[in-house]
Amino acid sequence: MSAPMPPSSLGLRTLELLQGLPPQRLDEISRQCLWRRFEPGQLLIAREHDDRDLHLIVAGAVRVTSYAPGGRETSFRDLQAGMSFGELSALDGRPRSADVIGLRSGLIASLPPAAFRALLQQEWTVTERVLLRLTDLARSLIDRVLDLSTLSVQQRVCLELLRLAQAAGVDGNQARIEPAPKHADLAHLVSSYREQVTRELSALAKAGVVARQDGALVVRDLERLKHIANREVAH
Amino acid sequence: MSAPMPPSSLGLRTLELLQGLPPQRLDEISRQCLWRRFEPGQLLIAREHDDRDLHLIVAGAVRVTSYAPGGRETSFRDLQAGMSFGELSALDGRPRSADVIGLRSGLIASLPPAAFRALLQQEWTVTERVLLRLTDLARSLIDRVLDLSTLSVQQRVCLELLRLAQAAGVDGNQARIEPAPKHADLAHLVSSYREQVTRELSALAKAGVVARQDGALVVRDLERLKHIANREVAH
Repeated sequence: MSAPMPPSSLGLRTLELLQGLPPQRLDEISRQCLWRRFEPGQLLIAREHDDRDLHLIVAGAVRVTSYAPGGRETSFRDLQAGMSFGELSALDGRPRSADVIGLRSGLIASLPPAAFRALLQQEWTVTERVLLRLTDLARSLIDRVLDLSTLSVQQRVCLELLRLAQAAGVDGNQARIEPAPKHADLAHLVSSYREQVTRELSALAKAGVVARQDGALVVRDLERLKHIANREVAH
Repeated sequence: MSAPMPPSSLGLRTLELLQGLPPQRLDEISRQCLWRRFEPGQLLIAREHDDRDLHLIVAGAVRVTSYAPGGRETSFRDLQAGMSFGELSALDGRPRSADVIGLRSGLIASLPPAAFRALLQQEWTVTERVLLRLTDLARSLIDRVLDLSTLSVQQRVCLELLRLAQAAGVDGNQARIEPAPKHADLAHLVSSYREQVTRELSALAKAGVVARQDGALVVRDLERLKHIANREVAH
């Protein structure tokens, strides 16, 4: 933990959630926040902590990691300066669903839940952004539930490889994904385990659909990959 | 489609979302709504419709059914009088993610999205309820993603049977679930397909864990069921 910083509204101007608020209001929010510098690897939110603040990333970047009840890490996402996190607990007072650690050193301003709720009550533009973030979150989770309910791990791996191939640039029926994605990262992206992803990639390699080449993953038969990704789940 | 009803604020008093609003405000909302009677089986929202209204169930009950992109039905939930639906599209203007049909005949009041947003801007108590409903929705979806990512279909079926057994009443190491749950209903509850549920139930019956008896499902070995539900996923 670092020493508290003197409040400053300058940093809050870059926050997406607070865009367009008048300077006096930013000053006021600034004074309500606890300001902390953080370093890479520093734990900012832990599931067992009882803080319910809304956290504003003024500088640096953080990683949010979700865990299953058994303790297994299930997914993560990285957030940059200007973004915020912790809305759910700040709104409903229930425990955190994730851990957050520093990724690149920076500065965080933490707004207590009562101050956050008062802000929402007074500033419709902020409320509107929070409402839209929550609908976005709900819609992406609904999509994920649908994917998980209706697609096999094999299909999810193939769909993710197709996305990576599109991003890397397709050349006819081939694509070169460089560097090759780590199996653990692919597992996070498709909500599965590293071991299952390794198994699916081996099967795809054996079938000649993908191949490893000098640290890259080459898709050798994009059409076949699409076919596997889109076929009806066997049952 | 039935004929529009004359507006009436009486029915809106029972709406959870509008609890505590003064009568004049209820009258105003009442006049902004389109009122419709509906019958069982009548389609109230379809994914391809372009309505973005917030729908208030004044009387009767409806069934909300979600679909995967391929068209397969994946889950449903029933909503009673006093509840509302359609918040996501009313807030973000994006397409519906579900179909809604009448379950028991009733009366629905549909508030256009602009009127809904104006209401939120003016009435903090309503906004607060919408914020908490969205956090509840997000948390239940997060739990569901975790279940789907980390538990096998077998485990999910066992967990659901344990819940049903607890609800029915446990007698030592046994429980009698009556009537026996339909496989299609179990499939909805665990986000899987009927065929997979049938397969898992057959395996449990063969292992002597459950048995069918006069239209009931008897759990013969509750401890064993718990053991299967809680074991680490094989991978």
